[in-house]
Amino acid sequence: MKTAKLLLHCPDRPGILAEVTDFITVNKGNIVYLDQHVDHVENIFFMRIEWELESFLVPQEKIHDYFATLYAQKYGMEFRLYFSDYTPRMAIFVSKMSHCLYDLLARYSAGEWNVHIPLIISNHPDLEPVAKRFEIPFYVFPITKENKLEQERRELELLEEHRVNFIVLARYMQVVSEQLIDAFPNRIINIHHSFLPAFVGAKPYHAAFERGVKIIGATSHYVTTNLDAGPIIEQDVARITHKDTVQDLVNKGKDLEKIVLSRAVQKHIERKILTYKNKTVIFS
Amino acid sequence: MKTAKLLLHCPDRPGILAEVTDFITVNKGNIVYLDQHVDHVENIFFMRIEWELESFLVPQEKIHDYFATLYAQKYGMEFRLYFSDYTPRMAIFVSKMSHCLYDLLARYSAGEWNVHIPLIISNHPDLEPVAKRFEIPFYVFPITKENKLEQERRELELLEEHRVNFIVLARYMQVVSEQLIDAFPNRIINIHHSFLPAFVGAKPYHAAFERGVKIIGATSHYVTTNLDAGPIIEQDVARITHKDTVQDLVNKGKDLEKIVLSRAVQKHIERKILTYKNKTVIFS
Amino acid sequence: MKTAKLLLHCPDRPGILAEVTDFITVNKGNIVYLDQHVDHVENIFFMRIEWELESFLVPQEKIHDYFATLYAQKYGMEFRLYFSDYTPRMAIFVSKMSHCLYDLLARYSAGEWNVHIPLIISNHPDLEPVAKRFEIPFYVFPITKENKLEQERRELELLEEHRVNFIVLARYMQVVSEQLIDAFPNRIINIHHSFLPAFVGAKPYHAAFERGVKIIGATSHYVTTNLDAGPIIEQDVARITHKDTVQDLVNKGKDLEKIVLSRAVQKHIERKILTYKNKTVIFS
Amino acid sequence: MKTAKLLLHCPDRPGILAEVTDFITVNKGNIVYLDQHVDHVENIFFMRIEWELESFLVPQEKIHDYFATLYAQKYGMEFRLYFSDYTPRMAIFVSKMSHCLYDLLARYSAGEWNVHIPLIISNHPDLEPVAKRFEIPFYVFPITKENKLEQERRELELLEEHRVNFIVLARYMQVVSEQLIDAFPNRIINIHHSFLPAFVGAKPYHAAFERGVKIIGATSHYVTTNLDAGPIIEQDVARITHKDTVQDLVNKGKDLEKIVLSRAVQKHIERKILTYKNKTVIFS
Repeated sequence: MKTAKLLLHCPDRPGILAEVTDFITVNKGNIVYLDQHVDHVENIFFMRIEWELESFLVPQEKIHDYFATLYAQKYGMEFRLYFSDYTPRMAIFVSKMSHCLYDLLARYSAGEWNVHIPLIISNHPDLEPVAKRFEIPFYVFPITKENKLEQERRELELLEEHRVNFIVLARYMQVVSEQLIDAFPNRIINIHHSFLPAFVGAKPYHAAFERGVKIIGATSHYVTTNLDAGPIIEQDVARITHKDTVQDLVNKGKDLEKIVLSRAVQKHIERKILTYKNKTVIFS
Repeated sequence: MKTAKLLLHCPDRPGILAEVTDFITVNKGNIVYLDQHVDHVENIFFMRIEWELESFLVPQEKIHDYFATLYAQKYGMEFRLYFSDYTPRMAIFVSKMSHCLYDLLARYSAGEWNVHIPLIISNHPDLEPVAKRFEIPFYVFPITKENKLEQERRELELLEEHRVNFIVLARYMQVVSEQLIDAFPNRIINIHHSFLPAFVGAKPYHAAFERGVKIIGATSHYVTTNLDAGPIIEQDVARITHKDTVQDLVNKGKDLEKIVLSRAVQKHIERKILTYKNKTVIFS
Repeated sequence: MKTAKLLLHCPDRPGILAEVTDFITVNKGNIVYLDQHVDHVENIFFMRIEWELESFLVPQEKIHDYFATLYAQKYGMEFRLYFSDYTPRMAIFVSKMSHCLYDLLARYSAGEWNVHIPLIISNHPDLEPVAKRFEIPFYVFPITKENKLEQERRELELLEEHRVNFIVLARYMQVVSEQLIDAFPNRIINIHHSFLPAFVGAKPYHAAFERGVKIIGATSHYVTTNLDAGPIIEQDVARITHKDTVQDLVNKGKDLEKIVLSRAVQKHIERKILTYKNKTVIFS
Repeated sequence: MKTAKLLLHCPDRPGILAEVTDFITVNKGNIVYLDQHVDHVENIFFMRIEWELESFLVPQEKIHDYFATLYAQKYGMEFRLYFSDYTPRMAIFVSKMSHCLYDLLARYSAGEWNVHIPLIISNHPDLEPVAKRFEIPFYVFPITKENKLEQERRELELLEEHRVNFIVLARYMQVVSEQLIDAFPNRIINIHHSFLPAFVGAKPYHAAFERGVKIIGATSHYVTTNLDAGPIIEQDVARITHKDTVQDLVNKGKDLEKIVLSRAVQKHIERKILTYKNKTVIFS
């Protein structure tokens, strides 16, 4: 059943929820999902609503216009509208480690997600055989300090050519630069192998071992120009002991990383994430 | 700020949410909380809404009537209405172990909960000193097979006399009988020291040890006439290993039990639980 | 560095640990791992010890004999001896779901485990393309009530032919019969999609949904002739809410299943599991 | 049954474990616990062993001397020896929040721990009624920048007078100074209300809220002169969502704090902790 998904936020005022649900109900849309949240500190109203389009009286191509005219202006809303029959296009960036890539491709290949993966990009050739197994085009752009901006420009062209909507950094061991981030604002998902904000930057497992923590973590977040400081989407942790070596942390961490990354990608694909002031609202 | 809390469920139909929120908004109630859920299998709509009464145009004592007349009949709703200035009255039943009792009383004593505890009932005198420390009346009703119904009748009188609204079985090692359950339907909260439905009945830690599980659990639930089979409110688990003896499980389990019980009691006090078909809806 | 791994258990008596470590030290073996456990209820001593063979004075092929003669008889020990340069051979059984299979093969393919996978067996052809991607022979044995024993006999021949040491049931939706279990005692690892002993048998997610639990789980265990009742190796859980449908449980459960199964397989490959009286000792 | 507990660490060399267990076995000590760990990076051997003294041939008062002479010198060991019939004496420092204090006293009062609590010290009078309930002397030392060192000197006298062995900071909202730390090296246990090393210092829940993390934590550690940077004993976490306010984090955190602190205190009382290079070895 084809549906529309609407995500919005605006200054909180009485009646918004009633008006928006009323708009859909009155026009014979069958609401199949509704979740809302009020941030009482910032006084912001957040909402996600999904309804079936079959009997909806407003034609699909006019919903955006109608909604903008009738409500968005009135309430100072920002909103995004998605339709279930559109399949977003996702690029994966990798380096040398395969665990996150396999986890993404296994789900993709099993048809778990409404997504298309037109290409994989890497700064190393190592994972080309994995891409081949899943028959996905694989492009290598070796990165040095000198060629980084130029290589990224070529990557951007490729991403545009493949009409990519969002990017997943699946243990891509490069800091991406501002031009790439600006082209995909809140649409680059990274997995950092620590419980942020602990152990920002390189070699977090070594740092965790050094500090003697009893729990390690992984964090998926949208990439912003501040390193490892973007809006957090999902985190999880695993218990360790004094018996664990750095290599044990790396191994245990792999399972965390792949699961935490895939959960974030899934939420993104399902259009369940709103970002606001460097934080995320994750709808149920 | 005084508020009203409304919990309801009814067959799902378009427009309920809009109508209910409209009723409050139109009458100048400021909505401070809203959560809803649709069970698409049973086709039931669940909702919890809370609003400030200060400027609300419907007088507090008439809200119930108005709502019943205007909406409950129309939609076939069951609903409950609570006001924040009413403090519910909770009785605690205990036997010999003090960990859950202390945890409840520590929170009560620190003023964490909007609740009054007029009495503690036990089938043993052991915990009377704890009750004394917190200056709460303590009543002992020794239970045997023969006197159980008679003792419970006396307990019921005492509960009525103290105008008790709900009961917490804080490791009360007796099966309560139908007369008590019928007097407090979905208003007796028990803590069972296993991950239900595993290890129903007596000595669950021994059974868990025997089976060689790697994780133990605790479950808080409303008491029904089927032993350990009532609607589950909250569960949590802890990891164990082959090194743990039965006594280790008992000790680790204590922390689970007290936290899982207190979380359930808190949700109950906050009016965040709806029960339906032997399950709970726990609002956020 | 080549090592020997020795796992043993016997009635507990003073001096065993000292004698065994002494045997290795005196013969110039460098101990790199030692863990022991005493079950004070059953009075059984369990031990796992690993040492480097480079300077060890007892020739590799004679260690078993020496140890049997010098200690096993004296203490009534059962013991197993493994060498790090032997790569065990593992068969995977699957049906239609790919998530566990992908997780196993991704680790295998990345060289994470010291194991060889000579074949995959299934009762359905669905996952043949996955096997092909990883270039592993795939055999289909459709199972009916009537042909089960005969098909298993053919599977057993194939397993023998490929010199398979142990079997992993990666969501293999068939009960394996006694002849297969007897041929691989404590060497068939299954993943059950519930927190055992809760929800034994078919459709555990449906049963969990029906019961209204707040946490779901997965359990890996060795297969015995009692359904879902063999020695538990590893368990893990995930939190759910009233908002989760049966399908949500299935999806969340998949991540649990693959991780819990892979952890068990890893422990098995690393020779870290001893079984005793339908329980496991999992060395650190 | 009276036991001796020996904790030691020294440079790793072959034969230490065999020699130490041999010393106990030969002298007819019945070993009831043994755990060891080798840090292969630092090449340090750690060990904890416990044995019954009833038939032990070395008199209790001479064990320390014998062990020092026979082994400690030879292997360059540091070791500590404890006897089960000695009850350590613990002081609690608090400020205004009662949840950790209640949790400690509830366990103490139920006889769960082999410890004596001769006094509670606070910089505020607020929790005196709690101390009174449990009949424990309560001393108030208001702290200002100016009087801090002087007040601590008076506290130290009091601690000495009460022969206190170790201190528990149960949400004591003051940084303790070097003189107190030096008097109790690795014997002051603090609870920090964050997942260290994230959110060091004041107001960690506010910082966690600001950063938008999806999981909060608590950390118990030994106090050193570097703020919140001492050896970590225990950590645990709880999941939060965008719906949680700072106050919700504070409330959820309380349960974490008290459990994580009590686990650390229990491990300390049971003599299961060794510290080395700003890390802990926590024996099983």
